[in-house]
Amino acid sequence: MRRSQVPTPALLVDIDILDRNIAVMRNCAALLAVKLRPHAKAHKCVEIAQRIMAAGAIGVSCATIGEAEAMASGGVDGILVTAPLASADATQRLYRLLLRGADIAVVAEDPACVSQLSAVAAASGRTLDVIVDVDVGMGRTGCLEIADVVALARQIADAPTLNYAGIQAYWGNLQQISPFPERSRLIAIQADRVRAVIAALTSASLPPAIVTGGGTGSHRIDATTGLFTEIQPGSYLFMDSCYGAISISENDNPFTPSLFVAATVVSASKPGRVVVNAGWKAFATDSGKPVALHGAPPGASFRFMGDEHGALDFEGDRGPALGSTIEFLTSHCDPTVNLYSAFHVVRGDEVIDIWPIKARY
Amino acid sequence: MRRSQVPTPALLVDIDILDRNIAVMRNCAALLAVKLRPHAKAHKCVEIAQRIMAAGAIGVSCATIGEAEAMASGGVDGILVTAPLASADATQRLYRLLLRGADIAVVAEDPACVSQLSAVAAASGRTLDVIVDVDVGMGRTGCLEIADVVALARQIADAPTLNYAGIQAYWGNLQQISPFPERSRLIAIQADRVRAVIAALTSASLPPAIVTGGGTGSHRIDATTGLFTEIQPGSYLFMDSCYGAISISENDNPFTPSLFVAATVVSASKPGRVVVNAGWKAFATDSGKPVALHGAPPGASFRFMGDEHGALDFEGDRGPALGSTIEFLTSHCDPTVNLYSAFHVVRGDEVIDIWPIKARY
Repeated sequence: MRRSQVPTPALLVDIDILDRNIAVMRNCAALLAVKLRPHAKAHKCVEIAQRIMAAGAIGVSCATIGEAEAMASGGVDGILVTAPLASADATQRLYRLLLRGADIAVVAEDPACVSQLSAVAAASGRTLDVIVDVDVGMGRTGCLEIADVVALARQIADAPTLNYAGIQAYWGNLQQISPFPERSRLIAIQADRVRAVIAALTSASLPPAIVTGGGTGSHRIDATTGLFTEIQPGSYLFMDSCYGAISISENDNPFTPSLFVAATVVSASKPGRVVVNAGWKAFATDSGKPVALHGAPPGASFRFMGDEHGALDFEGDRGPALGSTIEFLTSHCDPTVNLYSAFHVVRGDEVIDIWPIKARY
Repeated sequence: MRRSQVPTPALLVDIDILDRNIAVMRNCAALLAVKLRPHAKAHKCVEIAQRIMAAGAIGVSCATIGEAEAMASGGVDGILVTAPLASADATQRLYRLLLRGADIAVVAEDPACVSQLSAVAAASGRTLDVIVDVDVGMGRTGCLEIADVVALARQIADAPTLNYAGIQAYWGNLQQISPFPERSRLIAIQADRVRAVIAALTSASLPPAIVTGGGTGSHRIDATTGLFTEIQPGSYLFMDSCYGAISISENDNPFTPSLFVAATVVSASKPGRVVVNAGWKAFATDSGKPVALHGAPPGASFRFMGDEHGALDFEGDRGPALGSTIEFLTSHCDPTVNLYSAFHVVRGDEVIDIWPIKARY
């Protein structure tokens, strides 16, 4: 199938650009001597996780128990669930994953949850790696007080069926701070906090074997602090207009967009405008509007026109033909991927594969 | 299963409230003497379409060929695709639906597309009902000039395998204009246009048998114009905070929210705030943020904290317990439904069924 013949709206991933992004991050991690456990929240796709691991990653980070289930079903090892699990449902599903032999670790921030994890691990006959989630200024999840981090690490280390594996320190709120020096400055403040946490844990004879964190916007800075043993970026695989607008290192952004939404022109009857079959259900809308690329007149701009439609406004009367395909760069890759059941994998103008997107709600 | 035990994030629909909304709309349509072909873009669910038809609807409107496929597969009749189909893929899929005996009609705005529809109908050995899409001020799809409407109706009427079935006039841009009298005033202007279109078609011996349009925000006004033979509202089934904020008739909104997103408290370690496992991937974000309801402290407000998380901020230190369920009213029902694979159907505190959501991209 030709790229322009994909049933629309559709999600395209350019495999050569994807592979280049994977290689850039692998080389960066190797240079900075951190391990890579890239985040599956960006792709939810077994084929992509396997591709990243074939290029040297040690595993896959997951945001939800559903993502972990999808990765385990696909035979992916080295799963780390990076958000605390707190419902009876999530604990049960973790139990079933342990029974099935999944290679999985989880984070925790609460003593009662650690007790549940301990019980679940015992019931499964397995030992479960648990990482203490530390709040490093995001205010989302994680222990805020150093004393609480140490106490939770102690509780985990003392639980016979749990293995205290380290700490997680993720500053999601700093990933896209611009300019780059300001991002560095804010990360340095939080890195001092991580340093203090590690010192306290070490004093308590609980030095963390794993220190995990880092995203696409912060990984260069994070890795150079010397604090992290591994990083968990995800968006670098695809990129989007928000990540494309910032520097990833001092003066550079080495990643290239590999992800596109393809839509069809379904109305071309008015001057200066065509309408495509992609709207609020085809693009994430939390971070602005998509950017029209391939197939669009230069300078054309997108405008949402409802759940299933968008307008492409352009200068002059001559626009794309009715029935033609327009490709868009998304403003935010993760929640856009979440809108599709599969990636159409393209190399140049050819569709060479279809990869399922799993674990959507 | 108890309502509070549903794996989260999840979409709940309260069946008694849904049925009440269905009955309110049916009674309104009966009173105003218009037929009902409610829009499946809101629910994408065969079970809901069947429920509405059992209550007297003549069929189901669909925004995409994928929704039409899902409805046809579920045995739903009276399908009307309300957006022009322009890709080779969509035309092929329509052909297959015709071959399979689907009871389907489509709208069109372009002469070349009508020729394709004619060819597809001929190849399938069927006669296809086609409705002329008229642009009534939204600027999205549809013929803008009355002469173009008449010419397209003529082309359809003259095609041996097509049946000219009428016109569509949908003002999506006017659905939520407030206050109500201003919505009425703007609709009256466009209704005059529809009146002129109908007069021109009638003069050309092409009086439209069907005049379809209308949404949840406009149907009362539309029906009283005397122009419409049928209406295609959808959001009234579920409601959301945007539709809840407007009047549906002069001083009244007779619909009640039946749709809720359930999330679990996954972090409760900070005063004045808990974090739930629902973020940009769990709620549509095009129309504002969700409203915390059941399980939330009075006055608590939601704040997005990333793809998979949100914070619930409240007065005082005492909040919902870790692991407890909070239910939210969404700001926009259609694209929120689009984020889930199924409705958990609840009656009071019990989950009584699970209905699949089909035809997501």
